[in-house]
Amino acid sequence: MRIPRNHPRYQSLRIRELLVKGMKEGIVVPEGLLAHGRGEAFDYLIGEKTGRAAGKAIEAAAAALLTAKSPVLSVNGNTAALVPREVSKLASIIPAKVEVNLFHRSVDREKRIDRLLRRYGVKNVLGVGPSASEKIQGISSRRKMVDPAGIGAADVIVIPLEDGDRAEALARSGKRVIAVDLNPLSRTAQAASITIVDNVVRAFPGLVRMVKKLKRVRKSSLMRIVSGFDNKKNISRGLDEMMDYLEGWRVKG
Amino acid sequence: MRIPRNHPRYQSLRIRELLVKGMKEGIVVPEGLLAHGRGEAFDYLIGEKTGRAAGKAIEAAAAALLTAKSPVLSVNGNTAALVPREVSKLASIIPAKVEVNLFHRSVDREKRIDRLLRRYGVKNVLGVGPSASEKIQGISSRRKMVDPAGIGAADVIVIPLEDGDRAEALARSGKRVIAVDLNPLSRTAQAASITIVDNVVRAFPGLVRMVKKLKRVRKSSLMRIVSGFDNKKNISRGLDEMMDYLEGWRVKG
Repeated sequence: MRIPRNHPRYQSLRIRELLVKGMKEGIVVPEGLLAHGRGEAFDYLIGEKTGRAAGKAIEAAAAALLTAKSPVLSVNGNTAALVPREVSKLASIIPAKVEVNLFHRSVDREKRIDRLLRRYGVKNVLGVGPSASEKIQGISSRRKMVDPAGIGAADVIVIPLEDGDRAEALARSGKRVIAVDLNPLSRTAQAASITIVDNVVRAFPGLVRMVKKLKRVRKSSLMRIVSGFDNKKNISRGLDEMMDYLEGWRVKG
Repeated sequence: MRIPRNHPRYQSLRIRELLVKGMKEGIVVPEGLLAHGRGEAFDYLIGEKTGRAAGKAIEAAAAALLTAKSPVLSVNGNTAALVPREVSKLASIIPAKVEVNLFHRSVDREKRIDRLLRRYGVKNVLGVGPSASEKIQGISSRRKMVDPAGIGAADVIVIPLEDGDRAEALARSGKRVIAVDLNPLSRTAQAASITIVDNVVRAFPGLVRMVKKLKRVRKSSLMRIVSGFDNKKNISRGLDEMMDYLEGWRVKG
């Protein structure tokens, strides 16, 4: 079905189409569609735009990635379907490694995502099949297995659209965790060191722009950005922005 | 995958499973999973419980159904997958007709839903295949076709989980529209005469209980309940409840 460009929900319907296509191609699982729908509603609550708090988190995330020893971008099915181009760009300009990590794991799906990311220019995709041989403590699902050369050795890791169990386990393992999550009160959002409360389709292009900009900045300044960032306070500011936006609803409603 | 009963999101994961199963059986479409996910997040915002305003709307809806000349329950894929038992119960105790109406229409899916509803005791399912021969004005999707003996002749119609275009067209056609929608500001919620802002898995059992209770009440009293119900005000009260609940978040956050 063609979505008319003047449809009130054109942009969100287009993104849905990408995910339905991703499912037909074996990249996205049904549970990914449900999870995305949840995200959509939260996106609605922040006015479907990147707020100030999210902008701050993107800045801190870019600085953390540029000062990391071994940064890794963790990619799941929805991320691969929605922002493959931006994953590839980020990986090359930071530079960072890319690792596939799926909640509903299958080697077939890992390989499909591997092929998709390579098509967008990612040179080396970690975590496919038996290369994910190291276990992260405290995760019961099959996503506990990681690549020792990738997430296993990472000091900073970006986890877009993550489940709470894994986010908490990664945070406990001592890594600096950067989450992209539209629900500011999810366990993932609470466990992360830097939480970007934003839609991944805006957050990733935003990260690409910010990394490009901060690449010219001295390392000592970048480290000050990271150490000066207070995630709890920033999430709380984001909640304030959301409440202000919702108050506007109430007036209309 | 088995969901442990002590999982923090047990109930919502169980409902997701019903939908994923519905999709595998050809009852639910991928877009239905996305739509459900959105609903889930809104449900989260009202504390996953039926609030006072929703209770008021359920009461008005039950009274409207019991005083209708020709009430119809419109059923789509998600509704059939989530509350087939309650659709059947409501249809027999009101009594009301049941009509299948799908956004992503196919005769195959209509027949599957027909069979599912019959298994739960619905005697006659309208709107399947060529029996949907009448056109509702002002809808561009294929769901404009309705059964002349069902929705075509209805004075009161329940539309759970409806899209905005159809809700608006049905309201314009002069029918009393009862919507079940978790987003209080959706076009559907705004267009309906009675909007139940609640999860369909709670709203439908609630409707069954309320219809049973109000069956003993005199018709004149029921008509007073309906005429005394102000939908705009009730939606606004629901928004107030939501904001109060969210303020509680902010304190925790």
